[in-house]
Amino acid sequence: MGLSSVERIIPGARWLRGYSTEFFAADFIAGITVGLTVLPQSLAYATLAGLDPQYGLYSAFMGGAVYALLGGCREVTIGPTALLALMTSRHTNLGGMSGPHLAILLCFLAGIVELIMALLRLGALVDLISLPVTIGFTSATALIIGASQLKGLLGLPGSPSSSSFLPTMKFIITKFTDLSPSDALLGIGSIVILLVLRKLKDIKTPEDATKKRKIFGGLLWLISTSRNALLVLISSMFAYHAQNSGHTPFILTGKVKAGLPSFSLPPFETDISGQNGTTIHWDTMDMITELGSSIALVPIIAVLGNVAISKAFGGAGIDATKELIALSLSNILGSFVGSMPVTGSFSRSAVNYASGVKTPLGGIYTGILVILALSVLTPYFQYIPRAGLSAVIISAVIFMIEYEVIKPLWRCSRRELFTVALTLILSLAIGVEIGLLSGVFLDIAFVMHRTARPILSFEQCESLSAIEFTMMKPRHSLLCFPATEYIRTALNENIARLERSPTFVVIDFRNIHELDYTAAKGIIGLKKELALRKITLILLGCDEKVKLMLKTSSKANDVWQVKDENELDILLQDVKGNPKEELKHVIAPLLAQEDNEDDITVIRKESQ
Amino acid sequence: MGLSSVERIIPGARWLRGYSTEFFAADFIAGITVGLTVLPQSLAYATLAGLDPQYGLYSAFMGGAVYALLGGCREVTIGPTALLALMTSRHTNLGGMSGPHLAILLCFLAGIVELIMALLRLGALVDLISLPVTIGFTSATALIIGASQLKGLLGLPGSPSSSSFLPTMKFIITKFTDLSPSDALLGIGSIVILLVLRKLKDIKTPEDATKKRKIFGGLLWLISTSRNALLVLISSMFAYHAQNSGHTPFILTGKVKAGLPSFSLPPFETDISGQNGTTIHWDTMDMITELGSSIALVPIIAVLGNVAISKAFGGAGIDATKELIALSLSNILGSFVGSMPVTGSFSRSAVNYASGVKTPLGGIYTGILVILALSVLTPYFQYIPRAGLSAVIISAVIFMIEYEVIKPLWRCSRRELFTVALTLILSLAIGVEIGLLSGVFLDIAFVMHRTARPILSFEQCESLSAIEFTMMKPRHSLLCFPATEYIRTALNENIARLERSPTFVVIDFRNIHELDYTAAKGIIGLKKELALRKITLILLGCDEKVKLMLKTSSKANDVWQVKDENELDILLQDVKGNPKEELKHVIAPLLAQEDNEDDITVIRKESQ
Repeated sequence: MGLSSVERIIPGARWLRGYSTEFFAADFIAGITVGLTVLPQSLAYATLAGLDPQYGLYSAFMGGAVYALLGGCREVTIGPTALLALMTSRHTNLGGMSGPHLAILLCFLAGIVELIMALLRLGALVDLISLPVTIGFTSATALIIGASQLKGLLGLPGSPSSSSFLPTMKFIITKFTDLSPSDALLGIGSIVILLVLRKLKDIKTPEDATKKRKIFGGLLWLISTSRNALLVLISSMFAYHAQNSGHTPFILTGKVKAGLPSFSLPPFETDISGQNGTTIHWDTMDMITELGSSIALVPIIAVLGNVAISKAFGGAGIDATKELIALSLSNILGSFVGSMPVTGSFSRSAVNYASGVKTPLGGIYTGILVILALSVLTPYFQYIPRAGLSAVIISAVIFMIEYEVIKPLWRCSRRELFTVALTLILSLAIGVEIGLLSGVFLDIAFVMHRTARPILSFEQCESLSAIEFTMMKPRHSLLCFPATEYIRTALNENIARLERSPTFVVIDFRNIHELDYTAAKGIIGLKKELALRKITLILLGCDEKVKLMLKTSSKANDVWQVKDENELDILLQDVKGNPKEELKHVIAPLLAQEDNEDDITVIRKESQ
Repeated sequence: MGLSSVERIIPGARWLRGYSTEFFAADFIAGITVGLTVLPQSLAYATLAGLDPQYGLYSAFMGGAVYALLGGCREVTIGPTALLALMTSRHTNLGGMSGPHLAILLCFLAGIVELIMALLRLGALVDLISLPVTIGFTSATALIIGASQLKGLLGLPGSPSSSSFLPTMKFIITKFTDLSPSDALLGIGSIVILLVLRKLKDIKTPEDATKKRKIFGGLLWLISTSRNALLVLISSMFAYHAQNSGHTPFILTGKVKAGLPSFSLPPFETDISGQNGTTIHWDTMDMITELGSSIALVPIIAVLGNVAISKAFGGAGIDATKELIALSLSNILGSFVGSMPVTGSFSRSAVNYASGVKTPLGGIYTGILVILALSVLTPYFQYIPRAGLSAVIISAVIFMIEYEVIKPLWRCSRRELFTVALTLILSLAIGVEIGLLSGVFLDIAFVMHRTARPILSFEQCESLSAIEFTMMKPRHSLLCFPATEYIRTALNENIARLERSPTFVVIDFRNIHELDYTAAKGIIGLKKELALRKITLILLGCDEKVKLMLKTSSKANDVWQVKDENELDILLQDVKGNPKEELKHVIAPLLAQEDNEDDITVIRKESQ
């Protein structure tokens, strides 16, 4: 089946061609199921971001529609996530309308940055974030989000001095005795119920079950999957009932603005609260300054999340650049309808997958459900107890803490366990950016260290005709600047340790595929240094690229090079028999033969 | 000859034991020759740093004395250098006594940072500065210093708006017509004379020359080596004479404070000039804030210079940490006698070497000469023409511009030529720190890129019994996080390009020495992904460390591994004959056998 050019650019067109009733039914069911997850989650994440609940809903429909048209992986569902909500929450406490304004502008700018990343093919930057860093970062975020929800869960009065982890925990501990028993009961009870319901879907229906048993199994799965919606529905009904009977046992969500958001440009100016009830006007530059590093960090985290999901569900054949463009437009267009930053949600994508979605068009049905909720259900959202929403968030983020990685890493790579720990601790103690950057920095330092300190093995060898030589074998394929001095020192130290100074030192270049100018100069310097001590340096098995580098770096082409052990033996015999300078060209013609421009051009082309 | 513990810590003690008359004579001659170079240079470099000339002399004796006791390489001479003077000059234009105060504090702090670097073994950080970066940086510095001296050389009135390269050049060009003919004549004439005299020492005296000819040769060498001192002496005499006859043809150095500096703590507070002739008091924090990044950069540049020199002259056996301690104490103790930051000087070390120095004690004699000059000669220094000093500096830094690197790098490594260019251009256009850091960043990015995008070769192979398989061979010894996703994509793309999907994919691990957790997880994920498409993944020739990593990263030990082509063939035959899961352990016992704690402990120890 060939693709038309429209279909190549807009994968959605491909899904629509020959969209069968069967596919429609599957996508519809999956779309509604995801909708039942996203409704309570988006209300909760808006609260987590420090915004009114309707902004969560505004964020939950545009991404699905854009991704339905442009996305390549049917399971991915785009919308608000706990992580991005947490990162947004840092800019929503300045009062006035600045909270939503900054969140929406951040969504817009994140989309622009993602577009730039797509155009410059910078999506590969997320390759720099290793699994240990991701684990440390995600676990820290889960802990921060969990801590931030304890206040709502327990119905504590007041607010912590800052939204960071340590002040929040301090606040929880000092205020713990002021908890509201009814909220705490509802909250903790809800978590228990949600966790139990989550387990329900693991109950396998045997293949040979009766029809009744199968329907029961399906029902269990549905209850398990829509547990958040069920919990929110039942607890709100209870709260509504209590309210009507004149009781207010729970802290409630409060009025949610009804109706669809208007389609308009994102806000490029805002007012924040000043002292004594005054307001301060902020222009675009002020807002950008406030958002600061979030403008770079939110897109990176968003891309990281999206890559993880399309890797987990998409398998081969996902075009990373197209995915990035889909994500970018989800954010840019989302900002026109009042969305906060969005990306692929791992939990909802898993629901989508489990519901048997067939094409990305499933996102459209989710979107329609959210829009319906905005039009019809908003009056009822005010009765949702805060403790219930907190329970929804906590039972979602609990599974983001990956403690099971500790054992394997302790066993075979404590360096990487340290990376997890450093990322986690700095994320909690200072901030998630610092944690993430420190982890990445540590990983880069590791790669640089490996390159700078290649494992070197030294052996006392004999050639085929029993001439002794010292062999140094660097076990790293890239020999470059940071290793140059180390190799020289290590070789000298090894020679010093020998009983008598060797006559020949051979460096095994057979596993070395690249040499830079610094290392080439270093090898030539080493040759000269050894020559002063009457030691002959020989390079074994250099490839063409390495030879060219050595040749051009040294004016006199005077480092011995041999292809293999046979040639090495011939050279050793010759040098030993006649240790004068004239012999330099016994083997050197091997190199000299290649000294014509044609050969060099070929090699140069290969090396580019 | 064993070393006593005193001699181990203070190498100077070793030199003093059995210090023969012969050694004394050699060191004395070399010390005085270096002194004749350092006297005019230190006056000039102090001027370059924006300080009164005596501070150059203050900087020129302590380093030699400290190094004589603690240094390990007899040729190294420590004192003021053009590069450090340039870096100091950025903090000496605030008026009052703040110039020398900041320079001396910088010297002290640089010494402290060097001591910390020595204790934390951070001297290896200079390994991160590659030859191309060094070349770009040094050449830029030479241009900046050269430009800054044009004003003095031509006797231009006024000052450029800033000491950076571009404003300085703009100043020179716009003010060129205001040049003072006598100064310009003296300056340019001096450069010509200095360059000609420099060439003199290349005149070789034939071995069979007459005695007369040999003495003549020695005289030529002496004139060539002390050319700076000669030039300064003769031009000052001329200026002195003219002054006494009532003429002032040249701009002169002006009064130089006579006498030795007092030995006292470095200044921890100072006064800078405010507006309208007021003074502003600065405490230690203000001074540290002003010095800013110089506190880190000056030590790094100093260490880099010192490493280059001890590498060039010292050969094997130089202990980098001890050298760093010697450098550190030279700066710390130097700051007690009013020194600006000091390090090894390449040009003076070359003079020292050429003069036949035998031990680092030569530095003592240089120091004594400088102290004598401070006590006796200072009244005469005021007659030194500025243009002469500028000529001394320019003819020294001209040789720091390394244009000859362009051709070899253009031929075989344009990436590195780009690094040279970027470092050079950014150093000139923005500042030397930015230039240096950008170069280092580019180099690190290159190493990361090589690690992230290893060269992969794909081959369609046949096993010994003619079973077909696809072989992927990564040509990089470290398989880690940034490469994980790339390898997966590249393999999938290669499979997609084949006419029919292969049954077996083999990854050649024989050159891979290390695997991190991310890559291990990636390999396991790849295995699962391929299994869904009925492709069996086999790893060939993993070493023990890699095997352990794969085993602990995956709960089920289920990636096929074979030791060599023989085992591969057996496995392929077995799987082909019986493509069921039960076969998983035909070869896997190879791995299972090692599954006892002893083996693992051994491997873990090796890997640490």
